[in-house]
Amino acid sequence: MNKPEFNKLQLLPEEELNIRLSRLRGLMSTAGIDAILISSNANIYYLTGRVFCGYIFIPVEGEPLYGVRRPTVLKDEHAAAIRKIEELPPLTGFTCGTLGLEMSSTVYSTVVRIEKAFGDAFIYRDASGVLAQARAVKTEFELEKIRISGIKQTRLYERIPKLYEPGMRDIDLQIEIERMARREGCLGQFRINGDDMELFMGNILVGDNADSPSPYDFAMGGAGLDPSIPVGADGSLIRQGESIMVDVNGNFTGYMTDMTRCFSLRDDLPQRAIDAHNLSIAICDRFAEEGRPGTEAKALYEMCRLMAVDAGFENEFMGHRQHAGFVGHGLGIEINESPVIAPRSKSILEAGNVIALEPKFVIPGVGAVGIENTYVVKPEGPMECVTHAPREIISFE
Amino acid sequence: MNKPEFNKLQLLPEEELNIRLSRLRGLMSTAGIDAILISSNANIYYLTGRVFCGYIFIPVEGEPLYGVRRPTVLKDEHAAAIRKIEELPPLTGFTCGTLGLEMSSTVYSTVVRIEKAFGDAFIYRDASGVLAQARAVKTEFELEKIRISGIKQTRLYERIPKLYEPGMRDIDLQIEIERMARREGCLGQFRINGDDMELFMGNILVGDNADSPSPYDFAMGGAGLDPSIPVGADGSLIRQGESIMVDVNGNFTGYMTDMTRCFSLRDDLPQRAIDAHNLSIAICDRFAEEGRPGTEAKALYEMCRLMAVDAGFENEFMGHRQHAGFVGHGLGIEINESPVIAPRSKSILEAGNVIALEPKFVIPGVGAVGIENTYVVKPEGPMECVTHAPREIISFE
Repeated sequence: MNKPEFNKLQLLPEEELNIRLSRLRGLMSTAGIDAILISSNANIYYLTGRVFCGYIFIPVEGEPLYGVRRPTVLKDEHAAAIRKIEELPPLTGFTCGTLGLEMSSTVYSTVVRIEKAFGDAFIYRDASGVLAQARAVKTEFELEKIRISGIKQTRLYERIPKLYEPGMRDIDLQIEIERMARREGCLGQFRINGDDMELFMGNILVGDNADSPSPYDFAMGGAGLDPSIPVGADGSLIRQGESIMVDVNGNFTGYMTDMTRCFSLRDDLPQRAIDAHNLSIAICDRFAEEGRPGTEAKALYEMCRLMAVDAGFENEFMGHRQHAGFVGHGLGIEINESPVIAPRSKSILEAGNVIALEPKFVIPGVGAVGIENTYVVKPEGPMECVTHAPREIISFE
Repeated sequence: MNKPEFNKLQLLPEEELNIRLSRLRGLMSTAGIDAILISSNANIYYLTGRVFCGYIFIPVEGEPLYGVRRPTVLKDEHAAAIRKIEELPPLTGFTCGTLGLEMSSTVYSTVVRIEKAFGDAFIYRDASGVLAQARAVKTEFELEKIRISGIKQTRLYERIPKLYEPGMRDIDLQIEIERMARREGCLGQFRINGDDMELFMGNILVGDNADSPSPYDFAMGGAGLDPSIPVGADGSLIRQGESIMVDVNGNFTGYMTDMTRCFSLRDDLPQRAIDAHNLSIAICDRFAEEGRPGTEAKALYEMCRLMAVDAGFENEFMGHRQHAGFVGHGLGIEINESPVIAPRSKSILEAGNVIALEPKFVIPGVGAVGIENTYVVKPEGPMECVTHAPREIISFE
């Protein structure tokens, strides 16, 4: 964080802020929303380039108003220091209209308090979808941050084989990967939208632990080390003939990339696992080719699924004992953004979408195989891949 | 996670479950709530000893009903596999009554959907307070988990001086502490109640970075490495004459302890910093002595504050440029539980409360000093401290 900007609230360049506001206002107009009130960290970061505790009030016409609770030192010509939400409405100059709130990411009691503060003259609407739509199309400024995360995450993945030592359990390797990630500049914070999802630094799955179902809506599971956080590494020894899948946090810039690679102790996984892994690479390549502006997300899901079915991997596609209901997901500030590549997704791809595709397979007795890459939808031509580590199964020894 | 229990939903011993249910039902009766519907990970863990994705319906009289979405393999005589909330109400046998929901930890749109699923014959109430009250009094089973976390966290803190190497920045030391914590069994997950708070593995503050205010409602701040997560280490070099405050994640068992200790490069911090540190130790000792069942939390806050004021540290108490509004907080499954030791707290201490007290001081030009310990309120006598690392400022060289 640049010290001179320490007290500055708005860290986005003016031109960048205008691009984002303009897109958001267009979507607000279409949705019939006169103003939006934002308080989530993810959306505050999107609209200022920093996290603060407070609110942003964005009218369709006119300047945004920043109501800052903490830190109190933040300065901006449109900022007001407030202690509580009740102080904000008089400052907005609005006394009625349709007010959009983050109803799908703010707790119930807070939304009720906001509605009470603004009063009965307003009509309240869920603006979560509008904000998600705005954020789903990344600007060049955002894509640069994503590309930098991709470069750093790639460097991390290339070093993973050197971190292995004989006798390691999954968690031992994970701890060394976590350390290397942090040394490479990983910020640690793994932002997830919604109440239910929890994950620490990522997921390392060895052998049949990949077939342990988890409560969380991730592509893969794992039993975890404790029933209080039942996902990921479970203490399995890294053994010959089993796969090691690594899917760890790619937040190096405030914007995340998502990448998965597979390893083995020696170059000796069963042919069926190797076939499934190569199929995953083929699905990614086909996806990158077919994902253009105007493509339906659900059609892409079906294309991926059919490739798995046609190759005889229907039962192992996206899990074996438990199957994930998607094969890819948008990402950026949060790990689960729009569009989702799923059977009933209503999304249609747009240039600037950033999508992690993770066609994975769980092969009983071997473990999880397959890769995950992060792709950018381009105005023309195939998608741009921003995660570049070698795609084949790399052996440690 | 014990493999035989892999498919078992209810991991709490029957007697333990009955203690928790009995306390919760008593509080529900007092609040006039006929049944509670739970879906947050923290409360599901509290009532089953594991996290799953779904719901627990707990009537004041009768058995709890578990509605399980994921993982689908979970078995229990009172469990039903459901795909969505709309399938649950018919299974409960209830058609009307007062239904308590987690309105202060569930997003607005989810609460609205639950209310629609149960229908207009129910009256809906916020049961967040009732659940917080239940969880604020720990059972012996829970206290054992907290004591184990305390022992492991203590072992971690005792090793910190050995992790220092000349030329380290705050973040370099933090990364080595994170690794050591994970090797000691830290689960990583740092559960926080509420929308706004974010922290990765903990907070290392060196020198004047301790005086950089943060948006988050933690006792101390720090500028952080990136404006997307502006808290904690900012890349400051560890230098002679400045304090190093370490406050890292104590979740080793699903239940957290919270401990802070201070270090210096050599044994040469200015006397005013040493005085403030010793005052923090004295405040902790006094707190442990005075904190008995029946004591008002706000009286304890005032006692701590007055000790700081009387010693001439009013301006540095709980921050310098920005001051935290509390000196201690309950903790357990989450880092911010009841009771809070704050000026307007309405809590009265009960035996079984677990409270982290963190009387800290920011001395300009030196950094943060003071300690934090986790205490258990006992039925009689002074509080039990469960965090045992040496309390004085330890020098690295």
